[in-house]
Amino acid sequence: MLIVMQPNATDEDVRSVVAKLKSIGAEAHVSKGKFRTVVGAIGDDTEIATLPLEALDGVERVIPVLKPYKIVAKEAQDGLTIVEIGTAKIGGEHFAVVAGPCAVENREQTLTSAKAVAASGATILRGEAFKPRTSPYAFQGLGKEALEIMKDASRDTGLPFVAEVLDARDVELVAEYADALRVGARNMQNFTLLSEVGKQHKPVILKRGMNSTIEEWLLAAEYIAKEGNESIVLCERGIRTYEPATRFTLDISAVPVLRQLTHLPIIVDPSHAAGRSYAVGPLARAAIAVGADGVMIDVHPCPEEALCDGAQAILPHEFERLMGELRQIARVMGRVIG
Amino acid sequence: MLIVMQPNATDEDVRSVVAKLKSIGAEAHVSKGKFRTVVGAIGDDTEIATLPLEALDGVERVIPVLKPYKIVAKEAQDGLTIVEIGTAKIGGEHFAVVAGPCAVENREQTLTSAKAVAASGATILRGEAFKPRTSPYAFQGLGKEALEIMKDASRDTGLPFVAEVLDARDVELVAEYADALRVGARNMQNFTLLSEVGKQHKPVILKRGMNSTIEEWLLAAEYIAKEGNESIVLCERGIRTYEPATRFTLDISAVPVLRQLTHLPIIVDPSHAAGRSYAVGPLARAAIAVGADGVMIDVHPCPEEALCDGAQAILPHEFERLMGELRQIARVMGRVIG
Amino acid sequence: MLIVMQPNATDEDVRSVVAKLKSIGAEAHVSKGKFRTVVGAIGDDTEIATLPLEALDGVERVIPVLKPYKIVAKEAQDGLTIVEIGTAKIGGEHFAVVAGPCAVENREQTLTSAKAVAASGATILRGEAFKPRTSPYAFQGLGKEALEIMKDASRDTGLPFVAEVLDARDVELVAEYADALRVGARNMQNFTLLSEVGKQHKPVILKRGMNSTIEEWLLAAEYIAKEGNESIVLCERGIRTYEPATRFTLDISAVPVLRQLTHLPIIVDPSHAAGRSYAVGPLARAAIAVGADGVMIDVHPCPEEALCDGAQAILPHEFERLMGELRQIARVMGRVIG
Amino acid sequence: MLIVMQPNATDEDVRSVVAKLKSIGAEAHVSKGKFRTVVGAIGDDTEIATLPLEALDGVERVIPVLKPYKIVAKEAQDGLTIVEIGTAKIGGEHFAVVAGPCAVENREQTLTSAKAVAASGATILRGEAFKPRTSPYAFQGLGKEALEIMKDASRDTGLPFVAEVLDARDVELVAEYADALRVGARNMQNFTLLSEVGKQHKPVILKRGMNSTIEEWLLAAEYIAKEGNESIVLCERGIRTYEPATRFTLDISAVPVLRQLTHLPIIVDPSHAAGRSYAVGPLARAAIAVGADGVMIDVHPCPEEALCDGAQAILPHEFERLMGELRQIARVMGRVIG
Repeated sequence: MLIVMQPNATDEDVRSVVAKLKSIGAEAHVSKGKFRTVVGAIGDDTEIATLPLEALDGVERVIPVLKPYKIVAKEAQDGLTIVEIGTAKIGGEHFAVVAGPCAVENREQTLTSAKAVAASGATILRGEAFKPRTSPYAFQGLGKEALEIMKDASRDTGLPFVAEVLDARDVELVAEYADALRVGARNMQNFTLLSEVGKQHKPVILKRGMNSTIEEWLLAAEYIAKEGNESIVLCERGIRTYEPATRFTLDISAVPVLRQLTHLPIIVDPSHAAGRSYAVGPLARAAIAVGADGVMIDVHPCPEEALCDGAQAILPHEFERLMGELRQIARVMGRVIG
Repeated sequence: MLIVMQPNATDEDVRSVVAKLKSIGAEAHVSKGKFRTVVGAIGDDTEIATLPLEALDGVERVIPVLKPYKIVAKEAQDGLTIVEIGTAKIGGEHFAVVAGPCAVENREQTLTSAKAVAASGATILRGEAFKPRTSPYAFQGLGKEALEIMKDASRDTGLPFVAEVLDARDVELVAEYADALRVGARNMQNFTLLSEVGKQHKPVILKRGMNSTIEEWLLAAEYIAKEGNESIVLCERGIRTYEPATRFTLDISAVPVLRQLTHLPIIVDPSHAAGRSYAVGPLARAAIAVGADGVMIDVHPCPEEALCDGAQAILPHEFERLMGELRQIARVMGRVIG
Repeated sequence: MLIVMQPNATDEDVRSVVAKLKSIGAEAHVSKGKFRTVVGAIGDDTEIATLPLEALDGVERVIPVLKPYKIVAKEAQDGLTIVEIGTAKIGGEHFAVVAGPCAVENREQTLTSAKAVAASGATILRGEAFKPRTSPYAFQGLGKEALEIMKDASRDTGLPFVAEVLDARDVELVAEYADALRVGARNMQNFTLLSEVGKQHKPVILKRGMNSTIEEWLLAAEYIAKEGNESIVLCERGIRTYEPATRFTLDISAVPVLRQLTHLPIIVDPSHAAGRSYAVGPLARAAIAVGADGVMIDVHPCPEEALCDGAQAILPHEFERLMGELRQIARVMGRVIG
Repeated sequence: MLIVMQPNATDEDVRSVVAKLKSIGAEAHVSKGKFRTVVGAIGDDTEIATLPLEALDGVERVIPVLKPYKIVAKEAQDGLTIVEIGTAKIGGEHFAVVAGPCAVENREQTLTSAKAVAASGATILRGEAFKPRTSPYAFQGLGKEALEIMKDASRDTGLPFVAEVLDARDVELVAEYADALRVGARNMQNFTLLSEVGKQHKPVILKRGMNSTIEEWLLAAEYIAKEGNESIVLCERGIRTYEPATRFTLDISAVPVLRQLTHLPIIVDPSHAAGRSYAVGPLARAAIAVGADGVMIDVHPCPEEALCDGAQAILPHEFERLMGELRQIARVMGRVIG
């Protein structure tokens, strides 16, 4: 932690900062420049971070030097984490394709979509039981019935499935059915949900909040890991910017940035980012080329009948063609799908 | 709802759109321009909004004409809503000053702060028991013990108090103690929490998500109102932008915009927006001058000892001076504090 | 300048950083923490900033400690700058009201508007001759003819006027007529224009780029000041965010932030920020209450005939009422209008 | 153009809108819904757009239906534009690699870099003579001398070169030397510069403003095209968002979006977007995979000596490896480099 003093800070101000640091057992190195004094704090950064140093007289700003997350940091382990969801692997050389309808609407739509994506080579199924919807008047998901349908789709296709959990009270129910849990963008900073998800023993796909920095996202992962669950997959799904041409702006750069910061695998959801089916294929290709460990794609047999996000779903035959492109780029990248 | 067709849309495409609308009992007016055809959908917009019209062939985009919220819309009632929290009123001519420490850290800090803000003329106390923190290693609040301390502070000062609720499972507990519940920015789209809060009988202060549009915010309020609780106060607290000089960018324009859209009262939190104590007074003055119905301000007797957000807390004597300024501007604006 | 080394930086890496700093005569203080080494660079920061330190092996990031601007920095002089535009003053206790039509469309519209705002107490006229328009098919301004009309309006009302300059080749022409030049948001980083404007002897109103940080804005002011012209007024006019309800998001917090950083006066343009006339009055009141040194307001005798930005112009009688409110808040703030 | 009336708009208000439209020869279709009346305007949209319809009583909002650009719109021609810069082609099956140092610092650095990128297969050289710098104290480029060095580099390698133009007064000079002109992000809405560039006969690479929407970008291209120059290449270079981990956020989705809207070729600059060399390769691969028509990459023989943007430059041997990856993905995408 570096504490930059104001130009007019007094010696007394500097002494207060030093005393504050010493009060928790940290060391302080004072470095006087011509215009500014900088105090370097050496000790347990997590503890130092709890001090309200910016409220002390004469302090201009406090600059953290160490990363605030620990378990999920790249330095925390040798090599990359490979997460296993049922038979599927994500990370290392393994590139995952999570696919299926956005929401489970009924048995037929779900099984049709599941069989189609399985036939084209998807490695994990998606299909939601609980849907977070901006409007209270929109379709909110079928709940437990949807989980049963997904379980059947999983049995029929031999693929594991992932399902979103919206409420800490539903964690056990969803974990009973699904092979992996998903925490959605709107819940990325629902800290009690993160803790509950961290206490069970299923892998977790953690979507980035649409307004979250990469650092906040890693801290959300840290909430899960801190409870003992380190099987976490990060999923970039677009951030909110001023550009209206797409639903969100896919932050493709997050993939190489995260590769520098964490050992966790990183996948990309082009469907929710773009919000428009025509951009899903191009963005999925960009994801594998940039070095992501997987993609998550909405596929619907009949988007014009979808109860949720129909405009972004691609058709089964479009998915089939996309899988062909992904396989070719995977070879260039030295990856295997599955 | 207006459906704009693509330049190359066929008559068949237009007929499909019309058929889709008729399938749910809506009417369709087709208007052919030189370059584009536009279909106007007339009927229950909430129901029309559930149709995946953007997934239909030949559709370029779908433009909602009606507001997607109903109960909280300005047109839904004559005049403005005045929310009562204990003895305090918010809205109409009543300007509320919610003040106190960000977090309840211990009995002494809380009572000192509460008495100071009460003496200066605050109308409602704040002080949190459960704190949503970006890092799992930061102080998370004292929970039930804090609620008991706040209850005592309330008794000592005669002022009602508001407390944040983070988890649907805690709604009853917090409602048992507090005079009003607060839903924080990170939970603005925690829809199950919104519904639970809507089912109890205490007023709710709903903070804007730091990435939420005004429309999404009103839809979050609609989630609460739909369960029967219409005592809702909206609280602007800054949105996330590229500017690093403040913690968030206070969207002061949200106040006049909301005045056009809703009958609910609107308050402003300059402390969390700015993140720096020197800006709190100026922004609080801006809030009353722009026409807000109240402000929420962090006051701490000793910010350099604060366990949470010390850099943004103002001192009791600074709060005292600010109250004097607010009273003078209130007179210009035809408002009373309290 | 602080140079934070990567966790795995070698002693050789640190020595390279030190050598690089010494090569330009700067001193280097090396501070080894448990996890990171930090090198403090002491010397001429402007020169140190030219070193590509982030490209050196083992460097994680470079953190500037000193502000990159000098002449416009608060520390550069005792007290605040008061800018004089003709008979009007901006800064210190003087609050300026710049008003008039957005664009000069014809003589009658301009004179009507000018007389109306003068009668209500505006202190400076506005009315543009050259208009930067997003579309090449929109009205681009009357050029020199408009400057002549504004000169007449100025003579008739006894008020000075300000006019925008878009192109370095027009600086002399505009300076010949106008009492102050204005550099618009889209040209805030048109560095050759800034230099030209800095070379002449008229005050300059420098609008903030809609995507610019406060630091970049002050550096743009520094470009002007560096050429010898320190009569600069900063004008906040809204920044681009994801919120669509207003044309831009007025960053009202920029006023108190700038007050910490610069001695230059700061005004606010609520008209271009909001883009909607109903919000102009409330935001102008917020501007004076937050501590700004002036406002700039579009007033049009007949907005429904305006060739440019009619939706944001207020009517002369609305301006008259607003002036009354501003005068009352000015008294509370200890300011005089004029 | 669709004009949505307010809920309480009167018949008189609707008649005023209709009269306004008719006054310029447009037709008006009035469609009365249960809650809102919508007026559809049919005629020359460019002319209709000049009407201040939003300033009329009773109007809630005006929704453009047609795109505001014409010459650069996809519908304006059959097939895609292929731009020729010297011997290089951009667009269609041709993928361009523009590479070289960010700024021309001296002859040796420039020739070394130019030969290296030519040897690895770059198709166009870059190297700037005039640099727009945020700080007036930073290196501003060598001007004419740099153009002469680049001319020599071009002769030595047989590759054409592109150079940025900052000021309308320099357009002729730069066009005399360079094979293509570049308009930088900070000048994307420098409308007088756009017009000058449109009047000469060299191809133009138009970078996206870091705060510009895709629509504003196409309108900037329209400014150039309107003067007769349709050899325009659009260059995505990152937009400004709240995320601090990269210098800008590369909006990779802009590529498929633009493909729907324009016939112009689109390239991507990963160097300026990321601001960090480690991300340049991954983002360049993403660019070709998403369907872009080229990339522009900073390559410097010795980044730790660079006078400008050293942190984002990659080394010649890193560029060599990247070219190998791009060639392989080009094959998958059915593209040729060159």
